[in-house]
Amino acid sequence: MAKLGGNPLDRSKWQQKSIVTLALTVLTSSQAILIVWSKRAGKYEYSVTTANFMVETLKCVLSLAALSRIWRSEGVTEDNKLSTTYDEVIVYPIPAALYLVKNLLQYYIFAYVDAPGYQILKNFNIISTGILYRIILKKKLSEIQWAAFVLLCAGCTTAQLNSNSDRVLQTPFQGWLMAIIMALLSGFAGVYTEAIIKKRPSRNVNVQNFWLYVFGMAFNAIAMLIQDFDAIANKGFFHGYSFITVLMILNHALSGIAVSMVLKYADNIVKVYSTSVAMLLTAVVSVFLFGFHLSLAFFLGSTVVSVAVYLHSIGKLQK
Amino acid sequence: MAKLGGNPLDRSKWQQKSIVTLALTVLTSSQAILIVWSKRAGKYEYSVTTANFMVETLKCVLSLAALSRIWRSEGVTEDNKLSTTYDEVIVYPIPAALYLVKNLLQYYIFAYVDAPGYQILKNFNIISTGILYRIILKKKLSEIQWAAFVLLCAGCTTAQLNSNSDRVLQTPFQGWLMAIIMALLSGFAGVYTEAIIKKRPSRNVNVQNFWLYVFGMAFNAIAMLIQDFDAIANKGFFHGYSFITVLMILNHALSGIAVSMVLKYADNIVKVYSTSVAMLLTAVVSVFLFGFHLSLAFFLGSTVVSVAVYLHSIGKLQK
Repeated sequence: MAKLGGNPLDRSKWQQKSIVTLALTVLTSSQAILIVWSKRAGKYEYSVTTANFMVETLKCVLSLAALSRIWRSEGVTEDNKLSTTYDEVIVYPIPAALYLVKNLLQYYIFAYVDAPGYQILKNFNIISTGILYRIILKKKLSEIQWAAFVLLCAGCTTAQLNSNSDRVLQTPFQGWLMAIIMALLSGFAGVYTEAIIKKRPSRNVNVQNFWLYVFGMAFNAIAMLIQDFDAIANKGFFHGYSFITVLMILNHALSGIAVSMVLKYADNIVKVYSTSVAMLLTAVVSVFLFGFHLSLAFFLGSTVVSVAVYLHSIGKLQK
Repeated sequence: MAKLGGNPLDRSKWQQKSIVTLALTVLTSSQAILIVWSKRAGKYEYSVTTANFMVETLKCVLSLAALSRIWRSEGVTEDNKLSTTYDEVIVYPIPAALYLVKNLLQYYIFAYVDAPGYQILKNFNIISTGILYRIILKKKLSEIQWAAFVLLCAGCTTAQLNSNSDRVLQTPFQGWLMAIIMALLSGFAGVYTEAIIKKRPSRNVNVQNFWLYVFGMAFNAIAMLIQDFDAIANKGFFHGYSFITVLMILNHALSGIAVSMVLKYADNIVKVYSTSVAMLLTAVVSVFLFGFHLSLAFFLGSTVVSVAVYLHSIGKLQK
């Protein structure tokens, strides 16, 4: 932090990074609160795949809206024009395809693990993201930052412990394997998105987002047809939508854009810290909103996550 | 570690430190296993205060035995003679007195906390030892070592979590206060003992131990008379002793001597790490000996403790 004073470019970059990280944290925590709220309001009857498709569509629309504002103020340039080359666009479908495979696998893993157990196994994502970040993006973490990353994973899992968590240890081999594959797919999708976005640093992020989200729309349309064709044909596309459904779609779209921004101006490591802290914030806010009780495990996990955040930041300075 | 190669004095000091630390770890873990074993063998009917008195007496005898060997080989010198000055001996009763107060308080805290809750609150000892070590011995820990110490406390507590642990959060104010006072007393006794032992570095550790343990005998005799006078008068001093009681007394005496050695050749921080790792080792060994099951919380806590040990060691090198 001491180094920030001098260079105004460094300072504005740091501000940009902080703002997008804060936005991601706030949006992710409100996401989980909306889910709790929607469950309290009664079971949601809409088909999840149509909502996912709407999220991708909204992200596309918002990116185009941002772009048209930029075109009006700055004119169309090489960096912000929508048209693209085959070379540039060929990699964009890959993250969306990886997420599609991961989401399809999600339906099968529940044969081996219950939902709370799956929440715990999802923390493998943290480790897989760290490892793939190192291998694919070839960026180094210091020894202390690796230690912090292991702590982040252990702390998040600890914070989620409840009296039934030990059941996850009885998960059969296939369940562990699928959880690890899903963590690798999701880590790979995140790291690959960062690679795509960072490959052309001067390219406008809204154009990059537009192309990511177009393929997101396409792959979600496929998932929609595979899983919910009958429901949509019989009950209609927007069947079961409510005010809260709309809010959730809006929130998911904004969080998705915040993720892209974090990957553009920061990296996957910051993204993982941000969503982990958001998970803890959600629990604290739920105490006030819904009268939830915090467990001792939550306090211990939060302590470990806080120390991890601290170590990650001092680990960077000592490099 | 890289620095060790050159100086043979540093090397032998490091070896001494490693051996006493290892001895403390092994003795502490076998201690807990003996307790489990004795409980399995049926309730123990002996009075705990007589056993504590026997432990202090045995430690005294062992120190004298070690001294007489030294006197035979090296002769009596200024450093290993048993006789002492008022100035030297005046501070020796203080740790024993502090432990006496702490052990008496122990009977009252159970009015506010149950036994498993007390096990969890005892982890305050880790933090109090760190703080008093800093204040009284004026030794510095690096930022990373402080972070590691917080992690050690959180990790040990996490490893001990079970489905009833959340009850400890309902502890009334008096319970928290007593737990904190007891942690401060026990931390203070440990740090003060280190101060006494380190004040005269050339003084033979067996002489220092002898005087510590003589006062230990005296204060334990007081506790014995306060708490168990009737039982001893009616049933006899050694009533209810079994083979396993003798083993436990032997083990406690050797662990006590190991603690003194760790404080002479290392410090309270090493002592805390050593006993924490011993706690985890005990659980792992109990899986094989008694068919215990390890919980997910135990794995997470052990991960955090391992990272803490790692960070403590690299934190030292970076100072």
